[in-house]
Amino acid sequence: MAVVSPVIVLLTAPHDPPPPGLEPLEGLAQVVHVDDREGLLKAIPAADILLVTDFRTAIVREAWPLAERLRWVHATSAGVDALLFPELIASEIPLTNARGIFDRSIAEYVLGLTLLFAKDFRTTLALQEQRVWRHRETERMQGRHALVVGAGSIGRQIARMLRASGLTVDGIASRDRADDPDFDTVHGSGRLLERLPEADYVVIAAPLTDATRGMFNTEAFTAMAPTARLINIGRGPIVVTDDLVAALRKGAIAGAALDVFEEEPLPPDHPLWEMDQVVISHHMAGDFIGWQAALSAQFIDNFERWSEGLPLRNIVDKERGYVPPDRGNNKQ
Amino acid sequence: MAVVSPVIVLLTAPHDPPPPGLEPLEGLAQVVHVDDREGLLKAIPAADILLVTDFRTAIVREAWPLAERLRWVHATSAGVDALLFPELIASEIPLTNARGIFDRSIAEYVLGLTLLFAKDFRTTLALQEQRVWRHRETERMQGRHALVVGAGSIGRQIARMLRASGLTVDGIASRDRADDPDFDTVHGSGRLLERLPEADYVVIAAPLTDATRGMFNTEAFTAMAPTARLINIGRGPIVVTDDLVAALRKGAIAGAALDVFEEEPLPPDHPLWEMDQVVISHHMAGDFIGWQAALSAQFIDNFERWSEGLPLRNIVDKERGYVPPDRGNNKQ
Repeated sequence: MAVVSPVIVLLTAPHDPPPPGLEPLEGLAQVVHVDDREGLLKAIPAADILLVTDFRTAIVREAWPLAERLRWVHATSAGVDALLFPELIASEIPLTNARGIFDRSIAEYVLGLTLLFAKDFRTTLALQEQRVWRHRETERMQGRHALVVGAGSIGRQIARMLRASGLTVDGIASRDRADDPDFDTVHGSGRLLERLPEADYVVIAAPLTDATRGMFNTEAFTAMAPTARLINIGRGPIVVTDDLVAALRKGAIAGAALDVFEEEPLPPDHPLWEMDQVVISHHMAGDFIGWQAALSAQFIDNFERWSEGLPLRNIVDKERGYVPPDRGNNKQ
Repeated sequence: MAVVSPVIVLLTAPHDPPPPGLEPLEGLAQVVHVDDREGLLKAIPAADILLVTDFRTAIVREAWPLAERLRWVHATSAGVDALLFPELIASEIPLTNARGIFDRSIAEYVLGLTLLFAKDFRTTLALQEQRVWRHRETERMQGRHALVVGAGSIGRQIARMLRASGLTVDGIASRDRADDPDFDTVHGSGRLLERLPEADYVVIAAPLTDATRGMFNTEAFTAMAPTARLINIGRGPIVVTDDLVAALRKGAIAGAALDVFEEEPLPPDHPLWEMDQVVISHHMAGDFIGWQAALSAQFIDNFERWSEGLPLRNIVDKERGYVPPDRGNNKQ
């Protein structure tokens, strides 16, 4: 009897090529690349594994009833919100993610954003364009306080880097945690509003779940200090964008750096673009040079485990929407 | 016999007001504020102490022969190059400086500049102005290598912060030092050219002395990697500006962030202004909000020591041009 190699259906964003780094799968699996609804519906019945690089995909749910052979879904992203539809949650098919790959690069990015604000580099660059020499005083980082919402592997790495640069850093997690090694204090999410006023920087590093959707609304912005800046590298819908725009306009908070948005790309006519206290980046905080190959290598490592019948790494708790600490087992 | 309070001649830059924070001297000293040549020449004969806040001053040498009563010169800057003229060097009058005050804020600034380059925030801000969404990949900091030229208190703090953010950091000092706690390795300045090729970031944090003037010339830029960036927060004349411009034009190095210049302010027609791989700031890297009051407090602390006959802190070795490690004794 011939050994039949498993079928991996690779779902990318429309018109994206397959990511680099999947070459080692040759001979071990049959990789079928699709990038749209029609392709997915056609390919999914034969799929043993669904490999999703399009973190915004909205078509997997429709294909789900046809996924007769499917035994594993892997997302090459930290956030898996696009895949958490009821049928997948209810199924016994494991969902794994890219936990660990982006931690360090996102933490570096967040540190850079805090310094961009503190040292006022935007004004420096603008003055350079005008060839104007203007001495200014800038803020210190040392002794400032950050509140990181989300104490998973990304939030934790952010906390480590900010603390290493002289800030105090508290975390917001699903529940209080005593003696956390990476944070000064970790508070349960019920205490968010109480902890917001003292933060100079509020960093959203949480997954998008029912618990976090819309968490940052007018009430939260009103609780923040008028000198505080919001940094969102988590998911756009954790912030109520209209409330944020209003808060920025009336000076309820001092600024924001946003890498993720309720609608991506951010529409060209959106008022956020022209606010000079806002930094808009393009869902790229974690995407270091070589990130795609690193994601492929992580998938292949898990594929080898799957092939050998070993437990998968980074299995998402589908009810909670993220990989719990004890299930990560990630070598990154 | 009445106690005569000492006369402090305060020399500021032209048209600058006296710095904040000197109020506690009232009743303890007579402070005479001057801001130009004429004022200094008139005031200096009565001066017991010369307090210099203008780090670019060129008029102290001319006034020197009239300084009959002078017993102490204090500069509210880390660099004292403007005061190192032969007559002051030869005299027994102690020269003290602001060692320690700027260390942390300059180190934060340098860390911010490395992240500005690595995360390409300049392009991000430019795209925002054009309302263009363009995903990009950016560099990691982790594992990059920095070479810090100058292993005094500022260079040392830079090394600590860069290492805390995941870089390896070597130093260049007057001589090799084994087992330095703050650097991976400290090399003697004779090995500069040999160490330059491996650095992703070269940071100039040295005082301006005969040994460092013109240290960064075409030969140094040729030794640097074409992907490397130069950061100068030391003194402008450590860099041969024309050589730097040529090196940037031909791609011998990838970029530069300059806070100090051979001529300050940088003239409006200088070619550096319009290079988009160059960040121009305005001799402000260390000037955190509250810096002047901190400088005044440091002077007053030393003034109290002087009044009580205690040894002064931060006495500059006038031959070497900086405070040697064993003379700092600084509480900052």
